[in-house]
Amino acid sequence: MDKLKLTGKKKIIKVRDLEIGGEKPIFIAGPCSIESEEHIIDEANNLKKIGVDILRGGVFKPRTSPYDFQGLGYEGLEYFKKAADNVNLPIITEVLSEDDIEKMIDYVDIFQVGSRNMYNYSLLKKLGKTNKPVLLKRGFSATIKEWTMAAEYIAMGGNEDIILCERGIRAFNDYTRNTLDLAGALVAKNLTGLPVIVDPSHGTGRRELIGPMTDAAIACGLDGVIIETHRNPDTALSDGEQTITYSDYEKIRGKYL
Amino acid sequence: MDKLKLTGKKKIIKVRDLEIGGEKPIFIAGPCSIESEEHIIDEANNLKKIGVDILRGGVFKPRTSPYDFQGLGYEGLEYFKKAADNVNLPIITEVLSEDDIEKMIDYVDIFQVGSRNMYNYSLLKKLGKTNKPVLLKRGFSATIKEWTMAAEYIAMGGNEDIILCERGIRAFNDYTRNTLDLAGALVAKNLTGLPVIVDPSHGTGRRELIGPMTDAAIACGLDGVIIETHRNPDTALSDGEQTITYSDYEKIRGKYL
Amino acid sequence: MDKLKLTGKKKIIKVRDLEIGGEKPIFIAGPCSIESEEHIIDEANNLKKIGVDILRGGVFKPRTSPYDFQGLGYEGLEYFKKAADNVNLPIITEVLSEDDIEKMIDYVDIFQVGSRNMYNYSLLKKLGKTNKPVLLKRGFSATIKEWTMAAEYIAMGGNEDIILCERGIRAFNDYTRNTLDLAGALVAKNLTGLPVIVDPSHGTGRRELIGPMTDAAIACGLDGVIIETHRNPDTALSDGEQTITYSDYEKIRGKYL
Amino acid sequence: MDKLKLTGKKKIIKVRDLEIGGEKPIFIAGPCSIESEEHIIDEANNLKKIGVDILRGGVFKPRTSPYDFQGLGYEGLEYFKKAADNVNLPIITEVLSEDDIEKMIDYVDIFQVGSRNMYNYSLLKKLGKTNKPVLLKRGFSATIKEWTMAAEYIAMGGNEDIILCERGIRAFNDYTRNTLDLAGALVAKNLTGLPVIVDPSHGTGRRELIGPMTDAAIACGLDGVIIETHRNPDTALSDGEQTITYSDYEKIRGKYL
Repeated sequence: MDKLKLTGKKKIIKVRDLEIGGEKPIFIAGPCSIESEEHIIDEANNLKKIGVDILRGGVFKPRTSPYDFQGLGYEGLEYFKKAADNVNLPIITEVLSEDDIEKMIDYVDIFQVGSRNMYNYSLLKKLGKTNKPVLLKRGFSATIKEWTMAAEYIAMGGNEDIILCERGIRAFNDYTRNTLDLAGALVAKNLTGLPVIVDPSHGTGRRELIGPMTDAAIACGLDGVIIETHRNPDTALSDGEQTITYSDYEKIRGKYL
Repeated sequence: MDKLKLTGKKKIIKVRDLEIGGEKPIFIAGPCSIESEEHIIDEANNLKKIGVDILRGGVFKPRTSPYDFQGLGYEGLEYFKKAADNVNLPIITEVLSEDDIEKMIDYVDIFQVGSRNMYNYSLLKKLGKTNKPVLLKRGFSATIKEWTMAAEYIAMGGNEDIILCERGIRAFNDYTRNTLDLAGALVAKNLTGLPVIVDPSHGTGRRELIGPMTDAAIACGLDGVIIETHRNPDTALSDGEQTITYSDYEKIRGKYL
Repeated sequence: MDKLKLTGKKKIIKVRDLEIGGEKPIFIAGPCSIESEEHIIDEANNLKKIGVDILRGGVFKPRTSPYDFQGLGYEGLEYFKKAADNVNLPIITEVLSEDDIEKMIDYVDIFQVGSRNMYNYSLLKKLGKTNKPVLLKRGFSATIKEWTMAAEYIAMGGNEDIILCERGIRAFNDYTRNTLDLAGALVAKNLTGLPVIVDPSHGTGRRELIGPMTDAAIACGLDGVIIETHRNPDTALSDGEQTITYSDYEKIRGKYL
Repeated sequence: MDKLKLTGKKKIIKVRDLEIGGEKPIFIAGPCSIESEEHIIDEANNLKKIGVDILRGGVFKPRTSPYDFQGLGYEGLEYFKKAADNVNLPIITEVLSEDDIEKMIDYVDIFQVGSRNMYNYSLLKKLGKTNKPVLLKRGFSATIKEWTMAAEYIAMGGNEDIILCERGIRAFNDYTRNTLDLAGALVAKNLTGLPVIVDPSHGTGRRELIGPMTDAAIACGLDGVIIETHRNPDTALSDGEQTITYSDYEKIRGKYL
């Protein structure tokens, strides 16, 4: 194991003038899915006003059923980039296929690898050859070793700009969608030195828990959050029940401005 | 379900002049096992000085193997009561048998029901007929419904002085002993109205995570913590690896004095 | 650990003229709950005709909600004993409280400890002082070590007539109620030497899987099954969806007569 | 959901003159990793003699650590094909990258998708455009719905020659590596109509359980097994503790010839 690149030395990742893993917690927000050009422009403009560091938005959506809405694809990515450029914000979006990396690289500021692809080592290795930061979500039932070693698959290629994201694991959940493992996230941070953020939207699946879990994550020393917002969560095309309004987001965000 | 007694109305539990579930977070500390009279006197005196609300100490220890140390029993309880009375602190200890309730009732301020007995409805029903508060730990894999309904087994008998305690559940733990489910704890608080505290010692199994998880629990609105301390954790008769020194405890406690 | 009483030496348990853990697989059947005198007489008479070794029937029912049907208690036990005596069959029923052991002992042939009480060491120790066999179900998330050590809590008292029962554990169950762990059951058998049977009713929660899981259990060397039957499963007071008719039971049983 | 292609209609998959999902259970065997040309020739020759339907052998190995042995790659695949052709047996091997499909297609008879890639929908979609059967392992914590829907991702592209493989899930495993979910496998078979086989090597992680779990799987109506063999399991480059000798394999296989 002496070859490990991620050895616990604290790492700060720069995205434009942002520091991820630095003094201030990072807030990433935006819709689960980008639904139209007008929709993402509205999100970008509103979130910009109330305080967001990075915009999130899904254009390639991995869904349990292949017949569910799969995202707007490259068309959505065009909209996303334009909307974010208008308000001068960096963007993050999920990459699902090795073959998309090259095409996406001119659009995205950060590549997201979702829980379903945490063990997709071919994808991780290719991302390790790029010069873009990668946000690596923990798998549904991944151990800390598996998660931090997945990060190592990226780092091995030369790209050590990795942000880990704890998004809840599967446990005995009747009221919450997943179990947010803050202690595990801290262990991952200590082992690798990488910034670790939390996804309280997927982590709990319930709007009213997003604020408290944001507070808990920041209080214990984690580096930020990624939150699903929508101008009208009840009509969102995916994940509405864990998505909050701009105004609820503003209250959570406001504490840390 | 219209018969439910625990309906979400916020409840504050008084133990002497303490308020559990009130404005201030409660700190419960003490050894996993009481090892001798001198040992618990030392713990009580030291913890009193650095700030503790309630003393914890095990005298009946439920161990996976019947041949492991099972606690000092009633002899230990005598020591515990005397040591706590000396410094005027209330005590909490675990009850394992229905037949012990009556004998223990004059000693303890709060009965603890451990994770192993969360589903022991006979024990819960009998505790529901006493006038002592009960701290009810969540089972190893209990759902929130099972946990809050176990509280209802106590409340049904007339005793609604119940404190819930989240102590970590079984999940995909390689570095931590359990997965501390803070969001689940909040849901249980919202559903029942009862105070809910957290056990970061069992919840993580690692000394260095006890402080951060205490901060996280309090930040998200939970009502306190129960922490294992020992004058010399490395020589503790049980659970040493998740037990902290008085001095480490003092640092955690100090933030909230 | 040299004190262990259950060391892997194969043990056959005699109940009247039955051998549990011997050559032939044991079939235990009967209703989840005994609903009336007439109901259990009907069950006993019908099951006797189609082949059953031991009758099961719940009179003390541990339910998640304290306001759900809790069983007929001692009145039900009277009915049960009478119905079984009429057809000369031994009975097994669950004991929930330490205080019931003495009263139940003249009625039952085998005490059942349910999953909820697998860690109730006070109950196990008292059962270890009786001369009746004990069927010990595995806890919802118990490891094999915890389960076999719970058996040791009984054996320690002198009573080594223990039957282990695998009834499914909690995992990632969307179509089944639990995950039946046949390999874990075999490990427990090898470690202790005790007979191990399987509960495909709770283990799967689905009627159509009871037959196939019975076949799997017997094929891999386990010692029998415990199955929930009812003259009309759709009207059963509890667990109807995992309960089969006499006629479906007869088909499963018939293969092994 | 009316668009589903896998609707429960029983499907038999032909590989050369073999029928998978037909009357006879299928036995797939071979080493976890192919270690050298001489090694796989030895395996192929020996397994052919004692009865195997399809040879398995890993050449691209997904390992938790990127610094562990990753397989011999295409060189290994050449050896594998040659060794199998010598004895006229079809082969199955794991594909890890979308970009390898085209290169591998002339070598393999069946593509294997491992647990780590069950949610790699890009890979599944591309395999759905090929004309080779795909063996799809269940993810570490996948629900039955997720698993059967992952199969649908393949079927959607036109390729319905899919074999499901239950390889054990993560649960409360202290003696076994995973928990083999036979009931879940049966549910998947009923829902999709596809053949479902079992991997008792990964499913248990213990040599002595491979025979009994094979018997259990076949007894409950599943369609075969995939077993790790090695001429000298204790020196295998990976997974030795769950790998059996030719002679032990022969005993298991012999029952079904």
